[in-house]
Amino acid sequence: MTDTVRSDWGIPHLVAELRQLRVQALENRRRQQPPRLPSRKILANIVDQLSAVLFPNRLGLPDLTDESIDYFVGNTLDNVLRQLSSQIELELLFARELAETSAVAHCSASDYTLQFAAQLPTIRQLLDTDLQAAYEGDPAARSADEVLVCYPGMVAVIHYRIAHLLYQLGLPLIARMISEIAHSATGIDIHPGAQIADSFFIDHGTGVVIGETAIIGSRVRIYQAVTLGAKRFNKDDSGMLVKGNLRHPIVEDDVVIYAGATILGRITLGKGSTIGGNVWLTHSVPAGSQINQAQVRAESFDAGAGI
Amino acid sequence: MTDTVRSDWGIPHLVAELRQLRVQALENRRRQQPPRLPSRKILANIVDQLSAVLFPNRLGLPDLTDESIDYFVGNTLDNVLRQLSSQIELELLFARELAETSAVAHCSASDYTLQFAAQLPTIRQLLDTDLQAAYEGDPAARSADEVLVCYPGMVAVIHYRIAHLLYQLGLPLIARMISEIAHSATGIDIHPGAQIADSFFIDHGTGVVIGETAIIGSRVRIYQAVTLGAKRFNKDDSGMLVKGNLRHPIVEDDVVIYAGATILGRITLGKGSTIGGNVWLTHSVPAGSQINQAQVRAESFDAGAGI
Amino acid sequence: MTDTVRSDWGIPHLVAELRQLRVQALENRRRQQPPRLPSRKILANIVDQLSAVLFPNRLGLPDLTDESIDYFVGNTLDNVLRQLSSQIELELLFARELAETSAVAHCSASDYTLQFAAQLPTIRQLLDTDLQAAYEGDPAARSADEVLVCYPGMVAVIHYRIAHLLYQLGLPLIARMISEIAHSATGIDIHPGAQIADSFFIDHGTGVVIGETAIIGSRVRIYQAVTLGAKRFNKDDSGMLVKGNLRHPIVEDDVVIYAGATILGRITLGKGSTIGGNVWLTHSVPAGSQINQAQVRAESFDAGAGI
Amino acid sequence: MTDTVRSDWGIPHLVAELRQLRVQALENRRRQQPPRLPSRKILANIVDQLSAVLFPNRLGLPDLTDESIDYFVGNTLDNVLRQLSSQIELELLFARELAETSAVAHCSASDYTLQFAAQLPTIRQLLDTDLQAAYEGDPAARSADEVLVCYPGMVAVIHYRIAHLLYQLGLPLIARMISEIAHSATGIDIHPGAQIADSFFIDHGTGVVIGETAIIGSRVRIYQAVTLGAKRFNKDDSGMLVKGNLRHPIVEDDVVIYAGATILGRITLGKGSTIGGNVWLTHSVPAGSQINQAQVRAESFDAGAGI
Amino acid sequence: MTDTVRSDWGIPHLVAELRQLRVQALENRRRQQPPRLPSRKILANIVDQLSAVLFPNRLGLPDLTDESIDYFVGNTLDNVLRQLSSQIELELLFARELAETSAVAHCSASDYTLQFAAQLPTIRQLLDTDLQAAYEGDPAARSADEVLVCYPGMVAVIHYRIAHLLYQLGLPLIARMISEIAHSATGIDIHPGAQIADSFFIDHGTGVVIGETAIIGSRVRIYQAVTLGAKRFNKDDSGMLVKGNLRHPIVEDDVVIYAGATILGRITLGKGSTIGGNVWLTHSVPAGSQINQAQVRAESFDAGAGI
Amino acid sequence: MTDTVRSDWGIPHLVAELRQLRVQALENRRRQQPPRLPSRKILANIVDQLSAVLFPNRLGLPDLTDESIDYFVGNTLDNVLRQLSSQIELELLFARELAETSAVAHCSASDYTLQFAAQLPTIRQLLDTDLQAAYEGDPAARSADEVLVCYPGMVAVIHYRIAHLLYQLGLPLIARMISEIAHSATGIDIHPGAQIADSFFIDHGTGVVIGETAIIGSRVRIYQAVTLGAKRFNKDDSGMLVKGNLRHPIVEDDVVIYAGATILGRITLGKGSTIGGNVWLTHSVPAGSQINQAQVRAESFDAGAGI
Repeated sequence: MTDTVRSDWGIPHLVAELRQLRVQALENRRRQQPPRLPSRKILANIVDQLSAVLFPNRLGLPDLTDESIDYFVGNTLDNVLRQLSSQIELELLFARELAETSAVAHCSASDYTLQFAAQLPTIRQLLDTDLQAAYEGDPAARSADEVLVCYPGMVAVIHYRIAHLLYQLGLPLIARMISEIAHSATGIDIHPGAQIADSFFIDHGTGVVIGETAIIGSRVRIYQAVTLGAKRFNKDDSGMLVKGNLRHPIVEDDVVIYAGATILGRITLGKGSTIGGNVWLTHSVPAGSQINQAQVRAESFDAGAGI
Repeated sequence: MTDTVRSDWGIPHLVAELRQLRVQALENRRRQQPPRLPSRKILANIVDQLSAVLFPNRLGLPDLTDESIDYFVGNTLDNVLRQLSSQIELELLFARELAETSAVAHCSASDYTLQFAAQLPTIRQLLDTDLQAAYEGDPAARSADEVLVCYPGMVAVIHYRIAHLLYQLGLPLIARMISEIAHSATGIDIHPGAQIADSFFIDHGTGVVIGETAIIGSRVRIYQAVTLGAKRFNKDDSGMLVKGNLRHPIVEDDVVIYAGATILGRITLGKGSTIGGNVWLTHSVPAGSQINQAQVRAESFDAGAGI
Repeated sequence: MTDTVRSDWGIPHLVAELRQLRVQALENRRRQQPPRLPSRKILANIVDQLSAVLFPNRLGLPDLTDESIDYFVGNTLDNVLRQLSSQIELELLFARELAETSAVAHCSASDYTLQFAAQLPTIRQLLDTDLQAAYEGDPAARSADEVLVCYPGMVAVIHYRIAHLLYQLGLPLIARMISEIAHSATGIDIHPGAQIADSFFIDHGTGVVIGETAIIGSRVRIYQAVTLGAKRFNKDDSGMLVKGNLRHPIVEDDVVIYAGATILGRITLGKGSTIGGNVWLTHSVPAGSQINQAQVRAESFDAGAGI
Repeated sequence: MTDTVRSDWGIPHLVAELRQLRVQALENRRRQQPPRLPSRKILANIVDQLSAVLFPNRLGLPDLTDESIDYFVGNTLDNVLRQLSSQIELELLFARELAETSAVAHCSASDYTLQFAAQLPTIRQLLDTDLQAAYEGDPAARSADEVLVCYPGMVAVIHYRIAHLLYQLGLPLIARMISEIAHSATGIDIHPGAQIADSFFIDHGTGVVIGETAIIGSRVRIYQAVTLGAKRFNKDDSGMLVKGNLRHPIVEDDVVIYAGATILGRITLGKGSTIGGNVWLTHSVPAGSQINQAQVRAESFDAGAGI
Repeated sequence: MTDTVRSDWGIPHLVAELRQLRVQALENRRRQQPPRLPSRKILANIVDQLSAVLFPNRLGLPDLTDESIDYFVGNTLDNVLRQLSSQIELELLFARELAETSAVAHCSASDYTLQFAAQLPTIRQLLDTDLQAAYEGDPAARSADEVLVCYPGMVAVIHYRIAHLLYQLGLPLIARMISEIAHSATGIDIHPGAQIADSFFIDHGTGVVIGETAIIGSRVRIYQAVTLGAKRFNKDDSGMLVKGNLRHPIVEDDVVIYAGATILGRITLGKGSTIGGNVWLTHSVPAGSQINQAQVRAESFDAGAGI
Repeated sequence: MTDTVRSDWGIPHLVAELRQLRVQALENRRRQQPPRLPSRKILANIVDQLSAVLFPNRLGLPDLTDESIDYFVGNTLDNVLRQLSSQIELELLFARELAETSAVAHCSASDYTLQFAAQLPTIRQLLDTDLQAAYEGDPAARSADEVLVCYPGMVAVIHYRIAHLLYQLGLPLIARMISEIAHSATGIDIHPGAQIADSFFIDHGTGVVIGETAIIGSRVRIYQAVTLGAKRFNKDDSGMLVKGNLRHPIVEDDVVIYAGATILGRITLGKGSTIGGNVWLTHSVPAGSQINQAQVRAESFDAGAGI
């Protein structure tokens, strides 16, 4: 702070160069104006507050009493829904600029927020089943409370269930940003488009990847570094990637998938199957299968494990 | 802030629904009152301050002088131990509610804090060996100082050594929460119950998992995505998972385990062995072994790499 | 705050013990004074501000107008370059203490900062190609804007391009600390010494490791858990690790490497090759190769996947 | 931050000298332990929150809706009462150390807090009359809302009514600290022991002083620099000041006192009187008096305007 | 934080009582909805930023260089004008609710903000004359820079000139709130409606009061506790106070008024006059007058020094 | 945040106009560069920390224990002296620019800081006498502790004693800025050049002004709105104000001055005198005088109560 020689950094020149690059980039994208996007920092704060609304004692404030808890929940809801509404507004503006008019024709940011809010109790119910599943599935867990405050799998699933709801409502950008907040915090990468039923448990979790069109049944358990990916990307006649087709696995109820297993393509793991560690699997297996490395022959394939 | 129409979100209805779900959840767990749990945010702050106490110049403040450093250390200690004591109090309350009376009969939060504090110099000594091991083990490291401020492996080991001490004192919840703070920051997941001797070095680290009953000797070096896991979970006659049995590997002194290796079950890696990258190993190997993928036959197994 | 019994923690004793250990550690390193090191927290803030300078609307403030944006960019530049200059000063002091005089003989912290600043437009240009590559490479991406705010791969590449520039200027410590900030946030570990050309895209990314001497061409695409590592470390006659030799792969233009592939040693992946998921590869492949697991025989090797 | 010579300040010597002075001071006061006192900063925050509870839209948040306002009020109440209870606990400890056992024998900090909370609606009712009085008494005021957010007199009266309630409950230290927060913000110094009825209005206010035993009726209006002070302090036989006797004026209903007037001693200003600017008054005046400078002869007196 | 008994404060009952009082108050004011008002905290921040815009080196950041200063000014302007526009929006809403439609018919918050911004250079010019006047008028001042960072009179005048501009634009509420921010910080109470020419200097300042219709010429100097007030308030036939009439003094160029002088009513102090300390003056004096206490006979008057 | 039309404020034009005014102002002052000045905000923080150093339990942290208190004091000292040294550096730079070379020839900012630090115990001793004087002088005070946390007079005296020491060392700008921080908080305006002996007590205090060359003996007591000012300013032959002459009163030991008294000029109030409320005094009085309004004839004078 106290050095007597204050140097110049050539700022005016840098500012001009950077402006030129921005103008160029806009022209390349045939845009007039730079987009205004939702903020990751604000969305992270929104998820923290929603977590506090859903589990006020354990993820909100430890000192809440029976008489004060509803005031805390109501006041936090009012704050967080107002903030969420602003972020949704930004996504709607952005979608409009992308000419995705169908997505935004029907309702306002307020409407979206209301629809989202109405589903919060349902999310709480699902998360209660996830908590119970974690408690029962991990011999080290001594209580569901402990799972809630310790397990990265729970962090990922809370974010997923919030993000998935927003994705369903037609807000894929905010949904994806929330998924990536969880990905950064846990190393677990669940696309908000994936459909995951109740009582879902991910243990350890680092390196788990679950693709956009994956479908996961009830009471499924997954360990670290498991991939539910796409076998290959389809290209159309002009060589462009085809978007949106069903390309990720279906995992039926009560399946367990151990660490490092790679499951690729629109295949089905039948109800109650167990997939062993490090297994590489690109074909469906019937209900009740017990798959391990020895049983799986390496298959030839063209492309690999892109998602 | 200035929109003139302020909408209602249906908050009273949501608050009522969420209350009902909380009451239901408490009833399901046969509890009267929601638990009051330690706070992850406060624990993260506690670890930051303990790191500053242990390495005041490098992880505390860069401007400390020889005359000021002890005041910084002493004052930070006073703050951090007071905060830790409050968090321990919350764990003791929680344990009491779980009727784990044995764990809490003997001493107060203050006593626990005192016992913890007394071991801080020992932790510093161990961490000095870890630093030296990292410096010697990585050709890219130019000084131990650089290791301390750069390497995620050091972040994980600092958290582990603090968490393990708390685990040993009978505070498994706080210990686990601290482990998960490191897991989130580094992708390295070391259970606080694992026993790890001096001069331990993890390079890169993302995806490393070390289980609760693992035992690791001196001068062991581990690379990214290594798992020291359980081969299978034992169930009792009623089908419930058996807790607490010895199910993770013993790694003897001077072992090196390269990236992606998976070591499962209560097996022993003999002193001075080297385990190659991506090796899948479920049986013990004698001292001095050099194991690579070619040598390991795939073994059949039932369950996989759960921890 | 209000408990009436305020306990003593034995602080004077702890402070004395910790001082003794610090003195011991300094003596072991033959130093008189503890080093003063750059701060990770400040560097993280610096990268955030540089990101805002490079992409002011999308990573800075959403409310910037055409008339205000240059003021925002110029003012942020002034702040961030001043802070960066202070951190560079600390690295230069540290280097001087390590007797690395050659590195610091030629210029001041201000000079380094100026040289860094002058390259910011070049970094922006490269990042524009990376954004475009991500948009084209991922069927789920609907716009380059979305990639910028969502994709962990972009976070990692922004940090890499900044860190690599600092590394090239002769500031390896700050460079490495910035790399580790990205590693912590994304699970992607790119050594700042690696050389990566334009249009680089990492999808999902958790567990990716790219070593110090790796060279990556234009339009390369990489998926999660890919390692570009060293096959083994060379030791000199006295058994010490040899530093700085070329030990990581060369990846030519237009190569795609799918999830979990491990590429080790100074080998070359020829232009336009595709490496399948989970492939373990330790020899060069010619241009246009299509490599999958079935084609790769497990090779015997001594050491493994250290970097 | 970057100067290479870090100087020593002689801290150990200073610390020792300051300790000796503290020990000396404790001995002079015949104490063993330094007191633990309430915090001015926390009390300022408490008053801000209580203001928000009392006037949620105008002194709380502007965006509250009809459905969210009660949640805001209830949640803020829970926070602020918890904090207040901690501060009361500190005052009770302090009182106990002063051996003022009578004051603390009867109830806990919680009890005091409850009694305080129960009177908040009464305080709101009184403040509504004060607001109305200000609106009617100032030709420049266009609405009571404006008075609430603009007028220093209202700030002083809000603090006074809170502080007086605490004073009545037997918490003179916290009461006084809150009075001084208002004094600092407004230049208006109302002792919390003064008794002031409804519809009280102070305009401009800088320099107003109202003593501990003053009694003020309904609908009184006071301008800047008015003193309601003590004429002299009585001393006992040993020359010590006598505490607690009734030494300040009684101001009856509907009195107006213009700027700079000094009213000293236990005199009575009769109902409906008007006291002109700069008047110096040390004797009672009957109801309906109109006093100005010309009418008042300077009186001889011994001591003056101490309070 | 850790006490095991968590008490109830009777919050639901308090919330209900406070709601009832709010409803009652709204009814009394014949309103349906509580007003949304500008925020004093935000306005204080706005004035701080405007001060930094006007004097960037001395009231902004000390480290600005010649090349960076304009970026700082431009960026701060963008932030502060956006915030000011939001606060103006709230005042316009409030005025509309008060049915003061004339005030708000003509322009939007943006328009007001633009008009305000356009006058900032004029404000800077006036403040430069004020600075020079202070430097010349105080024997203790060594430089105009010192005056700017030290003198409460300058703080008051900066706030006044900003507030007066807003008042002239038709935004009396924000204007008044800004005046009161200065009043709280300095004890100097200048109504934003007062008209004050260039080169104005207030020394010490505590207790100064300048009324709404006062007019002050060039090069006027005022000391602490000076009042430029109204002699009495006129009432209409129904006994209500008449608003807005010209009731405060006119002070011509080059007048000096010493500490404690009280000047009341629509009188004129002629050019170049000097008014001595503690003088009480309610009639005009010609140019060049030298007034002191001995010369002033106490005048009889009815009401006093209300403003 | 979400309004779709983002207006322009004409920022480039404003920035240019303001730049021109700054350039003009510099030219008027015959300067090349704008000054870099100490920061009021940082100085306020410095005084807070010094207060905590001087009275760690009462103005620092309430939870300090006997073993932790010295660490708190030492660590706070290190922080605050470092910050103070930076601020002193700015004043020295500023003085150098003003060509006041004599003031800065002899020592560095570090030297000044050391000299300041060495006097802190002396300041504590003096403040202990002030505390005792307040406790004995106010019938409402129940303990010296209460005085320390409640009384604005103590706030003013703490700031004064710190500022006076800096003034004596030759740092008049920082000294004055600290005085003004107290003036703003308390309405008490003590010039840092005044010389005040031990056991000084100001009660209430709003409006007190004590001039630069005033001398105050031991055990003096002063009430609100007392002025110790200059009778007139001397001008030299050219009509410029003469600086630095002795123009304020000498108040001998054991004098009491009641509220509103105005004492002007280089007169002496003899030991043990009592000056009544509102007295206007411009001549010396012998020891033991009892002065009240009736005894003082209004004196004629030329100029008044400037300081």
